[in-house]
Amino acid sequence: MADKSEKTKARLPRGFADRSAEDIRAVEKMMATIRSVYELYGFEPADQPLIEYTDALGKFLPDQDRPNEGVFSFQDDDEQWLSLRYDLTAPTARFVAENYERLPKPYRSYRSGWVFRNEKPGPGRFRQFMQFDADTIGTPGVAADAEMAMMMADVMEALGIKRGDYVIRVNNRKVLDGVLEAIGLGGEENIGRRLTVLRAIDKLDKLGPEGVKLLLGPGRWDGGKEGEGDFAKGAGLNNGQAEAVLQATARNAQAAQDSVVDSNATYQEGVGELATIEALVRAAGYGEDRIAMDRSVVRGLEYYTGPVFEAELLAEIPNEDGQIVRFGSVGGGGRYDGLVSRFRGEPVPATGFSIGVSRLMTALKNLGKLDNADVIAPVVVLVMDKDTESLGRYQKMVSELRAAGIRSEMYLGGAGMKAQLKYADRRGCPVAIIQGGDERAKGELQIKDLIEGARMSAEITDNAEWRAARPAQVTVAESELVAEVKKILAAQAEERARGK
Amino acid sequence: MADKSEKTKARLPRGFADRSAEDIRAVEKMMATIRSVYELYGFEPADQPLIEYTDALGKFLPDQDRPNEGVFSFQDDDEQWLSLRYDLTAPTARFVAENYERLPKPYRSYRSGWVFRNEKPGPGRFRQFMQFDADTIGTPGVAADAEMAMMMADVMEALGIKRGDYVIRVNNRKVLDGVLEAIGLGGEENIGRRLTVLRAIDKLDKLGPEGVKLLLGPGRWDGGKEGEGDFAKGAGLNNGQAEAVLQATARNAQAAQDSVVDSNATYQEGVGELATIEALVRAAGYGEDRIAMDRSVVRGLEYYTGPVFEAELLAEIPNEDGQIVRFGSVGGGGRYDGLVSRFRGEPVPATGFSIGVSRLMTALKNLGKLDNADVIAPVVVLVMDKDTESLGRYQKMVSELRAAGIRSEMYLGGAGMKAQLKYADRRGCPVAIIQGGDERAKGELQIKDLIEGARMSAEITDNAEWRAARPAQVTVAESELVAEVKKILAAQAEERARGK
Repeated sequence: MADKSEKTKARLPRGFADRSAEDIRAVEKMMATIRSVYELYGFEPADQPLIEYTDALGKFLPDQDRPNEGVFSFQDDDEQWLSLRYDLTAPTARFVAENYERLPKPYRSYRSGWVFRNEKPGPGRFRQFMQFDADTIGTPGVAADAEMAMMMADVMEALGIKRGDYVIRVNNRKVLDGVLEAIGLGGEENIGRRLTVLRAIDKLDKLGPEGVKLLLGPGRWDGGKEGEGDFAKGAGLNNGQAEAVLQATARNAQAAQDSVVDSNATYQEGVGELATIEALVRAAGYGEDRIAMDRSVVRGLEYYTGPVFEAELLAEIPNEDGQIVRFGSVGGGGRYDGLVSRFRGEPVPATGFSIGVSRLMTALKNLGKLDNADVIAPVVVLVMDKDTESLGRYQKMVSELRAAGIRSEMYLGGAGMKAQLKYADRRGCPVAIIQGGDERAKGELQIKDLIEGARMSAEITDNAEWRAARPAQVTVAESELVAEVKKILAAQAEERARGK
Repeated sequence: MADKSEKTKARLPRGFADRSAEDIRAVEKMMATIRSVYELYGFEPADQPLIEYTDALGKFLPDQDRPNEGVFSFQDDDEQWLSLRYDLTAPTARFVAENYERLPKPYRSYRSGWVFRNEKPGPGRFRQFMQFDADTIGTPGVAADAEMAMMMADVMEALGIKRGDYVIRVNNRKVLDGVLEAIGLGGEENIGRRLTVLRAIDKLDKLGPEGVKLLLGPGRWDGGKEGEGDFAKGAGLNNGQAEAVLQATARNAQAAQDSVVDSNATYQEGVGELATIEALVRAAGYGEDRIAMDRSVVRGLEYYTGPVFEAELLAEIPNEDGQIVRFGSVGGGGRYDGLVSRFRGEPVPATGFSIGVSRLMTALKNLGKLDNADVIAPVVVLVMDKDTESLGRYQKMVSELRAAGIRSEMYLGGAGMKAQLKYADRRGCPVAIIQGGDERAKGELQIKDLIEGARMSAEITDNAEWRAARPAQVTVAESELVAEVKKILAAQAEERARGK
């Protein structure tokens, strides 16, 4: 064992988190529901590794100005650069490009898994988080985008989120692209400025129109006024240009007021696709309360080329910090016609949606949709005598309980009776089994109802009648073990159902 | 879109793999069963991140002579070294040490997830693979080790592996440690040589006693004779020492023939613990056919301090390369009393077991225990007319089918009728729905039984009677869609059950 003076510090790197049993169970339950909707829609499970060649992932992250920023990268022993995936879409594109000939087209798949961002962590903002995506690849028409929006609406309701408490917002990158072309920001040479505009618009919720206008124009000091805090370089638009952009991306923007914008072909294409998506989802019975056209949605990722979506929770729910807020985005996606083409040099149009698993789980937990009341802690067999023969006997009790499907364990720590009961209490065990020398001699054992015991000791008035009806501790013959434990567990289940 | 000349190559780094839908479903099914056994035993789910501080993981991998070898590592922006976990045990130890006060002791948890080894990949040997572990931490007695062995035996049978087709082998590191002390290899100064001995013994299956003896002694040329291939440095034992080691680690070794060994306290402690474990598992009804004491088990990882286990499949099963072999190890584990103590400077005894998920899944698939026959591909609604109104109508059909719980999708590719049917075939779709202008005018649609259709076209004799009984294609009123599809799916299910 290590000397105290040289012991290693047990700590996690910033931005990483251990998950609790409760959260793991909640996520399992939630993901099973999401999976069932994806399956119902005809998607198949898929899975790519967490490590890819850096060049295969590409550089599409928002807010990253230097190459490799935002991504965990390291060199393989043959000097090639590897990276941890930053989303599930880039590896999916690599997989489809690599296996294109043998896959059915369109290729409809879903996948969940951890993704990594090497960026500054913050509250509720982690460097490792889980996404759950669905993608249709090899699909040129916006019917596939309409389907994505409808499927996400169905996912929300399958998870128990009431209609009106969520909305899937839909926009089209081509609308903004058309505006930018019209105001003179088209062409290869303006890629950087277009990206700055995109990221400025994506901050509308956070900074408001005035803040965004600064980012569209001369730039913005995040301290609130000139010279305070950090300076974010702007896109350098003049006032008229910035107004045109803000007008086109206002939440309820409809027709362009600017005739130059209105006559732009890309803009018109975007508007037309949005109209088709709207017609398709309405025909399928999805109203504005479920899927809304919203020109303010842009999504931060660079690789989107057409329709973009965002799933938003409208309900006011405590967030990760316990503040009651309109919860906001729990997922998003869009069309990425260029991602597979990067590898293949031929058009492979695609669209997809990504759910932020941890965020959605936090919301659902706070809405009371993911309770674990059906998970019962184990029955614990206490260890009074530690000789091999006694241990064998306790082990046999546990085996009998397990054979009857009852979750149970023998106490395996080194402590005495009192600590063992404390252990049972911390685990939330429903029942403890006790057999000392006296009981053993008589072929008996004690069964303690720990839930009832806790209730009784919490009650101020001694309820003699209740105690008589269901005592917190009984002594039974060894052969009665399973039957008696079953009886107590059933009584506890009944009380839980009664909402006691 | 990228120009062909500059397109990125779609490829995976060596030692990483994409998983098929079939394998993902098989793993899901298998893990649900393993989880149910772990839960029945009273273990709780836990989860640690994939990235830890390098020093927190420690260096315990086999076959790694240089620091950091075997582990993917990279520097954080504050210059601290981070690593991808190489197993689930080291992060578990970090977590328990960090949260020791608030956890119930013993802490019983299970966890599954990807682990990474930065080593030379080979057939069936990956740089990313999945483990599924259970651990009891804060447990001094070998009753916990006995429980691990029994739980693993129960897992094997819950997975459908017949008694006699698997065995859990149990040994104790203290036995070998005692032998090494007795022959003069004790003490801090011999850590390196003891490790070389350990790794030599771990290769017994691969190299046989003669090869191992070379590794225990002067070293071994892997080309078969002196000067050929690579040279592996030996532990430098003399002949008598090597014989003592080989004798103590023979599969059915019992009492030590060497009186110096026999009088060694560590050796005796190890032998005594093994006897206790054997007594406990036999008392609980686990015979030698399920849990066998076996002195040849050592396990490659350096951190084990007491009992070690290995789950071995005895059945002859095709392996990853299709060769019929005795499948071998699918998991293992042992006691690691020093791992949590590294952080805390106080004794925190612990034991655990790790299942190699991919290996076990390969075995179970080949044993026919994980078939996906219950997964039915989606019903596909073909797209004859692509105007928005028609698409809306096809979409409505799909919505009706889904509302009835029938997995289905509208064809979303860009191709014509023939390619659409080919798509349905590649997906293995059971039914296709077709509605062109003529049918629509009459308020009808065609339903094609694709399974029956394939069967009929494969049959040489035209079975007129059968064709009359269940034609491969029917025309029904739109309102009959769901009822008719259900009828066909039910008929197909019946045929599958009949084993056709």
